Amino acid sequence: MQGNKTLKELADYLGGVVRGNENYLINGLAPLDSAYPDKITFLANPKYAAKVAETKAGAVLMAAGGESYGRNVIEVANPYLGFAKLLTLFYVRQQPAVGLMSGAIIGKNISCGEQVSVHNGATIGDNVTMGNRCVIHSGAVLYDGVAIGDDVTIHSNAVIRERCRIGNRCVIQPGAVIGSDGFGYAPDGSSYYRIPQIGIVILEDDVEIGANTCIDRAALEVTLIKRGTKLDNLVQIAHNCQIGEDCMIVSQVGISGSSKLGNHVTLAGQVGVVGHIKIGDNVIVGAKSGVPNSLEANAYYSGYPVAPHKEWLKSTVILPKLPEMRKNIGSLLKRVEELEAKLAAK
Amino acid sequence: MQGNKTLKELADYLGGVVRGNENYLINGLAPLDSAYPDKITFLANPKYAAKVAETKAGAVLMAAGGESYGRNVIEVANPYLGFAKLLTLFYVRQQPAVGLMSGAIIGKNISCGEQVSVHNGATIGDNVTMGNRCVIHSGAVLYDGVAIGDDVTIHSNAVIRERCRIGNRCVIQPGAVIGSDGFGYAPDGSSYYRIPQIGIVILEDDVEIGANTCIDRAALEVTLIKRGTKLDNLVQIAHNCQIGEDCMIVSQVGISGSSKLGNHVTLAGQVGVVGHIKIGDNVIVGAKSGVPNSLEANAYYSGYPVAPHKEWLKSTVILPKLPEMRKNIGSLLKRVEELEAKLAAK
Amino acid sequence: MQGNKTLKELADYLGGVVRGNENYLINGLAPLDSAYPDKITFLANPKYAAKVAETKAGAVLMAAGGESYGRNVIEVANPYLGFAKLLTLFYVRQQPAVGLMSGAIIGKNISCGEQVSVHNGATIGDNVTMGNRCVIHSGAVLYDGVAIGDDVTIHSNAVIRERCRIGNRCVIQPGAVIGSDGFGYAPDGSSYYRIPQIGIVILEDDVEIGANTCIDRAALEVTLIKRGTKLDNLVQIAHNCQIGEDCMIVSQVGISGSSKLGNHVTLAGQVGVVGHIKIGDNVIVGAKSGVPNSLEANAYYSGYPVAPHKEWLKSTVILPKLPEMRKNIGSLLKRVEELEAKLAAK
Repeated sequence: MQGNKTLKELADYLGGVVRGNENYLINGLAPLDSAYPDKITFLANPKYAAKVAETKAGAVLMAAGGESYGRNVIEVANPYLGFAKLLTLFYVRQQPAVGLMSGAIIGKNISCGEQVSVHNGATIGDNVTMGNRCVIHSGAVLYDGVAIGDDVTIHSNAVIRERCRIGNRCVIQPGAVIGSDGFGYAPDGSSYYRIPQIGIVILEDDVEIGANTCIDRAALEVTLIKRGTKLDNLVQIAHNCQIGEDCMIVSQVGISGSSKLGNHVTLAGQVGVVGHIKIGDNVIVGAKSGVPNSLEANAYYSGYPVAPHKEWLKSTVILPKLPEMRKNIGSLLKRVEELEAKLAAK
Repeated sequence: MQGNKTLKELADYLGGVVRGNENYLINGLAPLDSAYPDKITFLANPKYAAKVAETKAGAVLMAAGGESYGRNVIEVANPYLGFAKLLTLFYVRQQPAVGLMSGAIIGKNISCGEQVSVHNGATIGDNVTMGNRCVIHSGAVLYDGVAIGDDVTIHSNAVIRERCRIGNRCVIQPGAVIGSDGFGYAPDGSSYYRIPQIGIVILEDDVEIGANTCIDRAALEVTLIKRGTKLDNLVQIAHNCQIGEDCMIVSQVGISGSSKLGNHVTLAGQVGVVGHIKIGDNVIVGAKSGVPNSLEANAYYSGYPVAPHKEWLKSTVILPKLPEMRKNIGSLLKRVEELEAKLAAK
Repeated sequence: MQGNKTLKELADYLGGVVRGNENYLINGLAPLDSAYPDKITFLANPKYAAKVAETKAGAVLMAAGGESYGRNVIEVANPYLGFAKLLTLFYVRQQPAVGLMSGAIIGKNISCGEQVSVHNGATIGDNVTMGNRCVIHSGAVLYDGVAIGDDVTIHSNAVIRERCRIGNRCVIQPGAVIGSDGFGYAPDGSSYYRIPQIGIVILEDDVEIGANTCIDRAALEVTLIKRGTKLDNLVQIAHNCQIGEDCMIVSQVGISGSSKLGNHVTLAGQVGVVGHIKIGDNVIVGAKSGVPNSLEANAYYSGYPVAPHKEWLKSTVILPKLPEMRKNIGSLLKRVEELEAKLAAK
């Protein structure tokens, strides 16, 4: 926690406007229910608007025009974003850089920016390049020839294999693997012959990678994750994939080899995507869906195989009715047969 | 293996009763099919009762009243539990403590109980607290401020991030990640702004975590796994979740943010649970199911979206009949139209 | 890249035949679209045959009898396999062995072949056996009593737990866990009692294990992966499983305890297999399928529960028609009732 700020200072930081006491002092952020007078709280979901009347917080961050119940208020266009920015302001502190600690394993011929922290127990291979203010935690391993940009954080026991490249401000959670060999084998009669995976992985700027997520290096060229895309934990990205900008790939999604996603694609948890297809910009795919073919842009799909989300909803509500439907069909077949017989007999 | 025990000693240890030679000596445990006379075997599944006649084991652990075919028997209320306890007795030996080995990386201001083993290559951050008889294997990393109870085992390359707390007798398998950042981002026009995840993870006593499983730290407060719950490998628990006591979460399950499970919940393999819902006590969810809404206690559900298990079974057996059903409907439509025409013509 | 080779040399290496200039010099491999005259390209998929006319490559690897458009050609029986072999020839170089580096943690009483590389930061437990030309990368951990064969590569932060055995030429990608405890607990009233997992894992020769994949040790005996089988990333193999020879287990598959797969089985991505079943030789299971019972050999299955693949295809295309089907049944019921009434009234 980072000391006191006036509401005026906070509003200026957020590009918002104070209603109430501009000089009121705040030293942190808390939920509506559990805040105290030295904290600011936030109203992001209108469903909780009535809680503003009862919160003990010293001020409330909310959208313009919200009912303040007499509280000090900072009005902003996007209170959820404002909440995130205040969290950063109050609670995130860059640790002082520790340099290349003596218990780190450092290869030959590395290039290293300023204010870097390579912690004891981290491994930096030969010919590695690191930008300014990088933090490499204990147990992380950068193989030979890796290059990472400025302000990159690589958590413990993450592995970046040879020659992969990581952009500025990327965050790699613990245990993630970037650049493992793609799953490529050539059938050789009854067995399989390993196809060398000589390509790399490139993460562009502002990409974040979840814990124990795996991104395979390309067979020949590049597996590419574009600017701003976030991957959750335990995601699988196979070799030669290309993921667009600002995508959200939720936990346990698997994307098979050589598939391409556009920008702003959201894949919900446990989705599977077959290889060699394209998913257009702004597509959303619902949880647990399976994508067996290319998808047009700007649409919401669900199911396996995926269908337009609303159609899928309509179909799935019928699944529990199948036994009754089948019974009715059996009964109809009989009754129609009887009708046909009666009519023929007349 | 731990030397010979008489059947009397084993029965006393298990709270059971010997039928046969109380002084018969046993030095280990083996399956019915492959046991020898110096071993005790066990009959947990009545389906294999006939095998007791043929086993070469020196004694059989079984439920009271089982047919012994003249074998030495230890009768217990729960033979499967007895089998597990005998395995522990014969095969599990606490290794002598090695202390803080010289090749471990040890931070400042740590607090450490008695008979601790921190192996070479393990990393203990600053201000870490460890209870008695903890074992931290090579490559495991405890970030600053972590606290772990007594008799905790943390296997190689597991990572416990800053300030997370681990109860007594917890076991963390290799590669598991406790306290990775929750997947929280605020949309900021076209991009995403990272929401600092300032909460922690708490594992209560007797929790066990599988290999490469990930548990994200809370955004603000606590991701909580309660006493006695076991997580299998490659499970994903998102931020702010609360998992009750004595739950069994099988491999590759994913639970989205802020969902709450009651006590004694079982989620079978590859189940997905949406965020912000509640699952009642004693619920069982079948493999590969998707849970899109809260579930009442004391019931067994399956499918996606989940339905009561028996209803799901009835629906799924009909899936292969769909083509025939559709054909029949087409035929019925035609025949009824013909009947209507004929009747109108009369 | 490994210097120049004549087409004659390459053809001899592949067991193929040159059409064109046998002395033409090649220094590498490139795709049809992006090759230059010093590279050989390959035509594995007949769909791209027309591109041979336009490639700038100096030679083309293709099947016998393919249209060469006047290019230099090497004809082989299996161009895709030939491509893999040329990649190996041109781009894969065994690094010079570095021995047991001073920054590695080496246990007591290890046995070690020739030309081994144990990198700084790797951990080798007591009584470990390593064959010739093994490479153990930084952060990999071999617990006590592990045995690995010749030409094994174990990537960073992979963990091989106590007494597990790895055959010749196996490759373990980063973060994989071999020999974690099986998920076995005996219900003890309301809680669970941990069943010691005293067995091991054996990987036979030429097995490859993907990044962050987990293979649990057997409860009593052996979890076995047979010769030549390849596992992709994030796969779960539970305790006591037996996987046959030359299987392909794609990413995020989960196989529950004690199940047995035959030889040449292919499980596509995100498949789940229940415990205690058998899958016959040469079975293929489609992506995201769930296998609830044993499967006969030599067949292709899909869906959950799995059905023969073609039947599943026929059923799934009908899912979007369910709302219409249900509406038609409702209408038919009404119309048949009316017909019955009219006929009765006559």
